[in-house]
Amino acid sequence: MVKGLFVTLEGGEGAGKSTLARSLQADLKAAGYEVIVTREPGGTPGAEEIRQLLVEGKTDRWSAMTEALLFYAARNDHVEKAIRPALDRGAIVISDRFADSTLAYQGAAGGISMDRLRQLHTLVLGEFQPDLTLLIDIPPELGIDRTQARLGLEIRFESKEMEFHRRLRACYHQLAELAPERIETLDGTASPDDVAMAAIMAVRRRLPE
Amino acid sequence: MVKGLFVTLEGGEGAGKSTLARSLQADLKAAGYEVIVTREPGGTPGAEEIRQLLVEGKTDRWSAMTEALLFYAARNDHVEKAIRPALDRGAIVISDRFADSTLAYQGAAGGISMDRLRQLHTLVLGEFQPDLTLLIDIPPELGIDRTQARLGLEIRFESKEMEFHRRLRACYHQLAELAPERIETLDGTASPDDVAMAAIMAVRRRLPE
Repeated sequence: MVKGLFVTLEGGEGAGKSTLARSLQADLKAAGYEVIVTREPGGTPGAEEIRQLLVEGKTDRWSAMTEALLFYAARNDHVEKAIRPALDRGAIVISDRFADSTLAYQGAAGGISMDRLRQLHTLVLGEFQPDLTLLIDIPPELGIDRTQARLGLEIRFESKEMEFHRRLRACYHQLAELAPERIETLDGTASPDDVAMAAIMAVRRRLPE
Repeated sequence: MVKGLFVTLEGGEGAGKSTLARSLQADLKAAGYEVIVTREPGGTPGAEEIRQLLVEGKTDRWSAMTEALLFYAARNDHVEKAIRPALDRGAIVISDRFADSTLAYQGAAGGISMDRLRQLHTLVLGEFQPDLTLLIDIPPELGIDRTQARLGLEIRFESKEMEFHRRLRACYHQLAELAPERIETLDGTASPDDVAMAAIMAVRRRLPE
């Protein structure tokens, strides 16, 4: 049976995940592969509706556990209806965020134990994991500057908020150490072209000859 | 610390859960208790929004596992923001449906194993369970006749659909056998007054003198 390649992009705000997704898509399409670019939360009509519940309203409207359950409801729909069917027909699927984001955001930053979140993953998706995760690593200060520049904003972040972003980054570092065969860390302070080149090489190493 | 009583009402369509909730509320309020009547999915503003995703659109829009995750996201919000705070101040909480509905609908009728659904419950809510569950038992044919009469409809059900309702009822019977100390089965073919009387006695036996 044909089996595609499932690549996920991870990192904090402003790391350059969307830019990288477009560069990867262009390169792999030019090389003749079927490439699907998608994102979480979302990626299917149902999951996009669940996304609305997660992104609208006050940031504290849900507890971290309720959020994790909504993310996994959306993720299960996304995997069943978009990701698995594409992989089954041999496509390369690139998702802007996946399960590691739940570990970082609801876990390290939200206070749910990694163990509980891993149990939730296994309960819902079993052993299903990305074949390759590209972690774009960037100091939170730089990521936030970039995001503000893109939105035309200049907001002074409170130290509590910076602490949140530092915890996120530390969690991503820890995840990369625990799964070095799956997660490749890219230097997000490099130029977009250099990040794209490193990512393309990482993906190509995992493609059949 | 004061601790209230958490009562849930379970059963198939047309069993008479809403009618019973109102009778219980009237009786217990008259006896001087604080009584909160609520329902699932829903019961809090956030959970009611999740409910919309579950009740709108085609019945097959979500897989049984995605549905179970949406139900538990709603249930977690409901427990955290409404049920636990009310129990903590000593109220009697009566919920029209709770976790047993997920075992019956997504489990026995939807095809997810009881074991997986119980793991999900424990992961999200730990040992939290109703103090008393009143199961209104009724033959599916009668429940459906009642529901149709209420809605002014007369639809001929397909045998596949009747089979679904029979599986639901068999699951409820099994749950009642496994937890006889928590679940009391009431004869839903009796008059509403007789059902209410049996239910009131079951609740009062569990109240402090």
